[in-house]
Amino acid sequence: RKKKDFSFSNRGKTLEDELNETNDYYLQLGHAVIHKKPVPVQIVRVEYPSRSAAVIREAYFRSPSTTDYNGVWNGKYVDFEAKETENKTSFPLKNIHEHQIHHMAQVLQHDGLAFLIIRFSSLDRYFIIPFDAFEVFWKRMMDGGRKSVTLTEIEEAGIELKPGAFPRIDYLPQLNKFH
Amino acid sequence: RKKKDFSFSNRGKTLEDELNETNDYYLQLGHAVIHKKPVPVQIVRVEYPSRSAAVIREAYFRSPSTTDYNGVWNGKYVDFEAKETENKTSFPLKNIHEHQIHHMAQVLQHDGLAFLIIRFSSLDRYFIIPFDAFEVFWKRMMDGGRKSVTLTEIEEAGIELKPGAFPRIDYLPQLNKFH
Ligand SMILES: [Mg+2]
Ligand SMILES: [Mg+2]
Repeated sequence: RKKKDFSFSNRGKTLEDELNETNDYYLQLGHAVIHKKPVPVQIVRVEYPSRSAAVIREAYFRSPSTTDYNGVWNGKYVDFEAKETENKTSFPLKNIHEHQIHHMAQVLQHDGLAFLIIRFSSLDRYFIIPFDAFEVFWKRMMDGGRKSVTLTEIEEAGIELKPGAFPRIDYLPQLNKFH
Repeated sequence: RKKKDFSFSNRGKTLEDELNETNDYYLQLGHAVIHKKPVPVQIVRVEYPSRSAAVIREAYFRSPSTTDYNGVWNGKYVDFEAKETENKTSFPLKNIHEHQIHHMAQVLQHDGLAFLIIRFSSLDRYFIIPFDAFEVFWKRMMDGGRKSVTLTEIEEAGIELKPGAFPRIDYLPQLNKFH
C-alpha cells in the first residue's frame, strides 16, 4: 500500500489557488500568460459613499458562459476549465455547464487548445484531459449513458499531473502532446 | 463640410455594447471566439436567503489586471482593450491602467495579437491600433512627454474602422495586417 506523501499534498488549498500559483509562476518566468477570469456577477445596486470606494450592495452570481482560464502560450490560444471532486471513483458530469462544453468545442474549431484539469481531492490526484477526449463522455451522457466519468476512464483519456512545489501543477509541458 | 450620417451613428450605445454585438456576430458566423471578461469584483459578504438565489451584499470593484476582451481567431490568441473618449482632438492616457499596458506587452512577447480599439464618441470615429504602435505614446509619457495621443497621431498609427450594421465594428479583417 502506497504511503501518502504529505510534503506535496494540497494542504487545504483549492484547485483554483494551486492553478493561480502555477500561472503566476509561468508569468514570472515568461512561459505563458494565462489568467483566471473574474467570477461573473450581475450588479443591481451600487452605493457611492462620500470619500470612500463605491460599494456593491446588491448583486447576483451569473452562470459562466465560458471557462475559468485562458491565455496565450507560444502564440497559441489556451483555454481550460478546472474542476475538483471529493468523489474517489468517478467524476460527476453535473459539475460542468453545457455552455462550457459548447465553448470548448468552439475553441477547438478555431484551433485553440482546449482541455480540462480535474482534481480528485481526496486522492490528491490531478489529470489533464484534452477536450476532444473528454467530449466523448459528455456525448455518452447526452445519448442516455452514465452521468459520470470513471477514474479509470480518466486515467486512460488524460495524463496524470504530479503536484510539486514550483510550479504547483505543471500542466504546460503536456500541451505539446495535444493534437 | 461633411454631413454626419445618422443611419450608422452609435445612438447612445456604449463601445462595449457595440463590441459585444460584433463579437456575437463573429461567434454566430464561426469567425472567431472572443468574449468580454467579467468586471472583477472582490466579494466580501453573501446572503443565502432560503428558497432563492444567493445575494451579494457587499463587494468592491477591483482594478482589472488584464484587458477587456480576449479569445481565439485562426488558432491565434487575440487580446485587446477598448476605450472611448468624449475628447475631440486627443486620447488621454489616464484612461489606461499601467498593468493593462504591461499585460499587452506580455501578450506580444508570447506572439499573441494585442491591440486597442478607441472610439472618439463625439466624432463617431473608431480606430484599431496595434499595441506596439500604441506603446510608443505610453513610453513618451513615461519619459516626461505629453499625457495624451493626438487624433492625428492615432490616424497615423492606427487604422480607421467604419461602423456598419452587421457586424457593428468589423475589426477582425484588420488583424491580417498586423506583423
Ligand atoms: Mg471551475
Ligand atoms: Mg475598456
